[in-house]
Amino acid sequence: MRRIFVEKIEIKIPLTVPVDLKDVYLQNYKNITKNTGNLFLFAGDQKIEHLNKDFYGKGISKESGDPEHLFKIASKGKVGAFVTQLGLISRYASDYKDINYIVKLNSKTDIVSTKQAEPISSILNSVDDVIKFRKNSDLSIAGVGFTIYLGSEHESIMLSQASRIIFEAHQNGLIAILWIYPRGKAVKKEKDPDLIAGACGVAASLGADFVKINSPGVKKLKQAVLAAGRTKVICAGGKAKKEEKFLRELYDQIHIGKTSGCAIGRNIHQKSLNDAVKFCLAISAITNYNLSIKEAKKHL
Amino acid sequence: MRRIFVEKIEIKIPLTVPVDLKDVYLQNYKNITKNTGNLFLFAGDQKIEHLNKDFYGKGISKESGDPEHLFKIASKGKVGAFVTQLGLISRYASDYKDINYIVKLNSKTDIVSTKQAEPISSILNSVDDVIKFRKNSDLSIAGVGFTIYLGSEHESIMLSQASRIIFEAHQNGLIAILWIYPRGKAVKKEKDPDLIAGACGVAASLGADFVKINSPGVKKLKQAVLAAGRTKVICAGGKAKKEEKFLRELYDQIHIGKTSGCAIGRNIHQKSLNDAVKFCLAISAITNYNLSIKEAKKHL
Amino acid sequence: MRRIFVEKIEIKIPLTVPVDLKDVYLQNYKNITKNTGNLFLFAGDQKIEHLNKDFYGKGISKESGDPEHLFKIASKGKVGAFVTQLGLISRYASDYKDINYIVKLNSKTDIVSTKQAEPISSILNSVDDVIKFRKNSDLSIAGVGFTIYLGSEHESIMLSQASRIIFEAHQNGLIAILWIYPRGKAVKKEKDPDLIAGACGVAASLGADFVKINSPGVKKLKQAVLAAGRTKVICAGGKAKKEEKFLRELYDQIHIGKTSGCAIGRNIHQKSLNDAVKFCLAISAITNYNLSIKEAKKHL
Amino acid sequence: MRRIFVEKIEIKIPLTVPVDLKDVYLQNYKNITKNTGNLFLFAGDQKIEHLNKDFYGKGISKESGDPEHLFKIASKGKVGAFVTQLGLISRYASDYKDINYIVKLNSKTDIVSTKQAEPISSILNSVDDVIKFRKNSDLSIAGVGFTIYLGSEHESIMLSQASRIIFEAHQNGLIAILWIYPRGKAVKKEKDPDLIAGACGVAASLGADFVKINSPGVKKLKQAVLAAGRTKVICAGGKAKKEEKFLRELYDQIHIGKTSGCAIGRNIHQKSLNDAVKFCLAISAITNYNLSIKEAKKHL
Amino acid sequence: MRRIFVEKIEIKIPLTVPVDLKDVYLQNYKNITKNTGNLFLFAGDQKIEHLNKDFYGKGISKESGDPEHLFKIASKGKVGAFVTQLGLISRYASDYKDINYIVKLNSKTDIVSTKQAEPISSILNSVDDVIKFRKNSDLSIAGVGFTIYLGSEHESIMLSQASRIIFEAHQNGLIAILWIYPRGKAVKKEKDPDLIAGACGVAASLGADFVKINSPGVKKLKQAVLAAGRTKVICAGGKAKKEEKFLRELYDQIHIGKTSGCAIGRNIHQKSLNDAVKFCLAISAITNYNLSIKEAKKHL
Repeated sequence: MRRIFVEKIEIKIPLTVPVDLKDVYLQNYKNITKNTGNLFLFAGDQKIEHLNKDFYGKGISKESGDPEHLFKIASKGKVGAFVTQLGLISRYASDYKDINYIVKLNSKTDIVSTKQAEPISSILNSVDDVIKFRKNSDLSIAGVGFTIYLGSEHESIMLSQASRIIFEAHQNGLIAILWIYPRGKAVKKEKDPDLIAGACGVAASLGADFVKINSPGVKKLKQAVLAAGRTKVICAGGKAKKEEKFLRELYDQIHIGKTSGCAIGRNIHQKSLNDAVKFCLAISAITNYNLSIKEAKKHL
Repeated sequence: MRRIFVEKIEIKIPLTVPVDLKDVYLQNYKNITKNTGNLFLFAGDQKIEHLNKDFYGKGISKESGDPEHLFKIASKGKVGAFVTQLGLISRYASDYKDINYIVKLNSKTDIVSTKQAEPISSILNSVDDVIKFRKNSDLSIAGVGFTIYLGSEHESIMLSQASRIIFEAHQNGLIAILWIYPRGKAVKKEKDPDLIAGACGVAASLGADFVKINSPGVKKLKQAVLAAGRTKVICAGGKAKKEEKFLRELYDQIHIGKTSGCAIGRNIHQKSLNDAVKFCLAISAITNYNLSIKEAKKHL
Repeated sequence: MRRIFVEKIEIKIPLTVPVDLKDVYLQNYKNITKNTGNLFLFAGDQKIEHLNKDFYGKGISKESGDPEHLFKIASKGKVGAFVTQLGLISRYASDYKDINYIVKLNSKTDIVSTKQAEPISSILNSVDDVIKFRKNSDLSIAGVGFTIYLGSEHESIMLSQASRIIFEAHQNGLIAILWIYPRGKAVKKEKDPDLIAGACGVAASLGADFVKINSPGVKKLKQAVLAAGRTKVICAGGKAKKEEKFLRELYDQIHIGKTSGCAIGRNIHQKSLNDAVKFCLAISAITNYNLSIKEAKKHL
Repeated sequence: MRRIFVEKIEIKIPLTVPVDLKDVYLQNYKNITKNTGNLFLFAGDQKIEHLNKDFYGKGISKESGDPEHLFKIASKGKVGAFVTQLGLISRYASDYKDINYIVKLNSKTDIVSTKQAEPISSILNSVDDVIKFRKNSDLSIAGVGFTIYLGSEHESIMLSQASRIIFEAHQNGLIAILWIYPRGKAVKKEKDPDLIAGACGVAASLGADFVKINSPGVKKLKQAVLAAGRTKVICAGGKAKKEEKFLRELYDQIHIGKTSGCAIGRNIHQKSLNDAVKFCLAISAITNYNLSIKEAKKHL
Repeated sequence: MRRIFVEKIEIKIPLTVPVDLKDVYLQNYKNITKNTGNLFLFAGDQKIEHLNKDFYGKGISKESGDPEHLFKIASKGKVGAFVTQLGLISRYASDYKDINYIVKLNSKTDIVSTKQAEPISSILNSVDDVIKFRKNSDLSIAGVGFTIYLGSEHESIMLSQASRIIFEAHQNGLIAILWIYPRGKAVKKEKDPDLIAGACGVAASLGADFVKINSPGVKKLKQAVLAAGRTKVICAGGKAKKEEKFLRELYDQIHIGKTSGCAIGRNIHQKSLNDAVKFCLAISAITNYNLSIKEAKKHL
């Protein structure tokens, strides 16, 4: 595959990374972006976030019901990184040592609706846990992930925790990725372009390396990417879509919206292993290798 | 007794267990599953959970009123493990050193109804306490247990605590067992099959070794067991039932639902010691030794 | 005096007591039960719990207004142990070194009614404080006390704290005594016999040495005492009563209800020092020396 | 000046003071009571408690607007101790090294009314901070102060904090002074004599050295002082009053009510420096030197 | 430029600064005030506080959309100090080592209105983080900033945190700056002169070096400045205004109101880099060099 991004990447290491861990940070960064600066994140934290709805039912491959499906895809699909909870990693990763892992440090279920109670995601593990785990497991743990529901009445708790986690991640040479979703009674429109740009500014202010957002529409992405500054923006895949449509959106997000990658779950893991792997290769073609939609589709 | 499961068990040690404690973890696992991989857990945490209702009254053996009844059954009934609060263990276990203990780390009473306030179970002891206690008492403390009320508005607190406890349990070579019960204003049907499967996925994401659930019905169990992945599913016994009916359900849960055992309280301890012990042997016959209902009933 | 209980007492030391502190625990147990296994606890934490109402007013001796009155009674009345807050002990005990002290670790006032807000008692001192204090003061600090309002919406906080305190008390060789009172919106009848038995089961599950309850009536006590198992039950004295009636109730609680003592405040300290001391001796006669009511009354 | 109290003072050192710090405690006690056992506390924490209302406006000396006014008075007025927040001390005390300081450890503003929300005072500094500060500044820091709003729904938090602070203060040889004000929805009459006596009993139970209360009226003070036991009672000055009236009240509080001093703010600092100093000398004459009102007035 | 203030500045070092760090504190103080005692603070924490509204839209320079704009202005505009969140500093400061940084330790977004919920700002970093960061980055980190919403029902949390942060900042030789804004249901008029003066008294009581307030009007500032004592007052710039009007207000605040500087955001960063730099020089002329409005305007 052609590698186009690779020459131009210049990684500004945040000053929160200790001098003697700069190489560790850099290596993690390169590993998950395949030396391109762009990130294809395979999102697999939904067993808590969406319970079993995303993994079982009409239109979903039966293979998806087993959590191991996620690891098989991540391994064979050559994703940049696979993000899920530490507990799940602890039970499968000994068989999947070739994956770059991002540990999702908080999660919530969707049983309690936003209408019933203002959203808050609960801390599952600390950065310290991750460091201990990395040492004991000898896995390629490249970073951590954390969700903020901006605009929730519990926002202040999540902002505090996010800031702490990013600081500690960097102190240990890890990459820090934020998920920021405006949500709560005060949020009338969750994908409002100004709000999404605001979310990106928050991520920048907290010093995140990447921020995962719900796209406000391709044309509105540029404002958000600008607001994010040196924090890179990646878009969530969202609900399942037709492959062609999906790849088109991804291509435009990167080339028009100037985003630096994607974080995709359902659109991948609801397919059979075979189809999921093919789709991953197509996604990577666009995300990491700057290929056209047409070229990407050759993987399907 | 014939041992059928024993040959095929293959225990995947989670990577959260330190390398030098793998043998401790494995031994605990084997002890409580009698080398079969299947767990017969005798549940005895109800003196807090249900107060004295389960232990005294019409249809309940008078012997049940005394907490020591539980220890007598656990000892003579050859259960896989007996789970109760550390405090109760501290007062009786010196006379019952042959039991494998699981320490229940949180509990709540049922005085405040779910309608009055969203459920939350309170932490009684830390894993550190358990480790100190194990060292001082020289008991066979094999693991810890923890309850999550999924869907409660306090869910985030319990998810955090559960995750922490599982991590710390594994760090110390202990088995971690979750009780997950969907409960709260947002939960319309506590045994909804999708919700129960979701609960199993949560247990997997948190890295639990076993998850105790309320069965959504034998036919619906497979989805749940699949969602649990390498976390093994055991079903609660629930309200007192006729013995034959009970054993039939258990047999089907294991053979049709593909569960890996059971966690039973009232159906055992409300009987006289003599009857309870017999019933335990029958349960173990099905759970650990793969025997038929007919063979199991010979113990009665 | 005749000592009848003394021969038959057998103290089961909980396994939460470290091996090298078993003698300390045993000595504390013997000190407060006068080697009989039965406890006469003089309750003096009411200056916070009931403010000044119990100490001043019609029918109350003027001597009762001064906190020192409590110490004078405890010293001359030969009570098993005197329980009050650490702060009060710190100011008087240098003049009353012969008393066995139990430090009450939490308290609340009764200004805010149960109707206005669910009850919660606030932690005043930790077990660590008590250990430091014991060392510095060289007093006979035999144990700690803690109140749980079972059924309060804040129950989970108090259960957590109680469990922690009992564990730490035992870790330091101290006796742990619980006060458990069902209270809160969810509690329709605070002395419901099943609920009181439930409370005793909770105390057993938490590993307490003694549990102080409000008697549900002499005939109903046996169920509670059975539920408490190896945790011993003592009854609160309650509102001021005529002496004869009081001693009769106490006698019946011990001999019919099978309780192991009493925890009495107002019925003692509202009398003049002279009368209070006499009454203490009568109470001890029944509680510790197995004497008849008639014999006990000779002290008056 | 004649010193009458000095011969009869006998200071009972609380057992929470470590043996090797008894001299430190005693010296602090003597310093702030001028060897008399009676305390004239100059209260200067109102810049948070009352914002600028007490310091600026009609009938208030213009000098009062500058925080330094408080230090000038404390220094020249020969008060027993000056109490204010650590932050304010940190900025002025290098110029006023002759003052005995009491550090007020919590405060609240009066913007949110008791009707709007139950009162709670916020911890500003720990005893540890005070110890570090004393060491670094070489000031005469004699003790700490803390406010409890008894009867607030947040009472349990403040009781916990107060108890902790008193214990730690004594552990470090410092004097501990409580402000106890009944306040909140449940409190119908803030100066109810029984309630005030109850507050004094609470202070005694927590082991405070002094408790500052709002006087329930001179004749009702004796009950309160009795309830306080070895904890000494001092009365707040309250709203600004005519000097003669003020001195009469103070004299009666001490001689009829049997209090051990006073804690006065507005009545002093709203005067010009010259008048304030004179008034301080008059107050000290009554409080520390047992002089008559007539003699005290000679200072004015 | 003429330097007029410089001769008369006398910096009273707070006693919370350890003796061996007095020089560090002094140097920080001098750096951010350009040896004049007056502070021109460039405020850049709005990417969280106001999201993207201040940085994008009608009347705002397009350059403002990129966070780096702030650093370019701070560097070229010779501001006294630039305040923003640690995360943002971590990503840009390696390219802007000549700036004096103040780390804003808490922030909130404005999505949830004051009407919906009482305001609280969330802690993002601790003083410890700042010290670690300063050491690792070798930047000129001169101090920390913290916001209090006085009058919010959560006031007690923020007062506690502020007090802690100021103490720790001084313990490490850092300057501590408070933002105090009266806000919440109880606050009818956020710029009420008495309330603003009260806020200044609170800042003094907490020992802050500077307090940023919203001006209650030039004539009312003197009361506030007096109440602040040795804590210096700086005024927020507020909404965007015409340059002339802005400079006039600033001049009057300093010369009539007796404030010691300003904290300005939008009025600067919404301009193009070129215009912003010029405006900064004009502001500094008035703030630090005591020049007339006419002279200051020569920079424009």
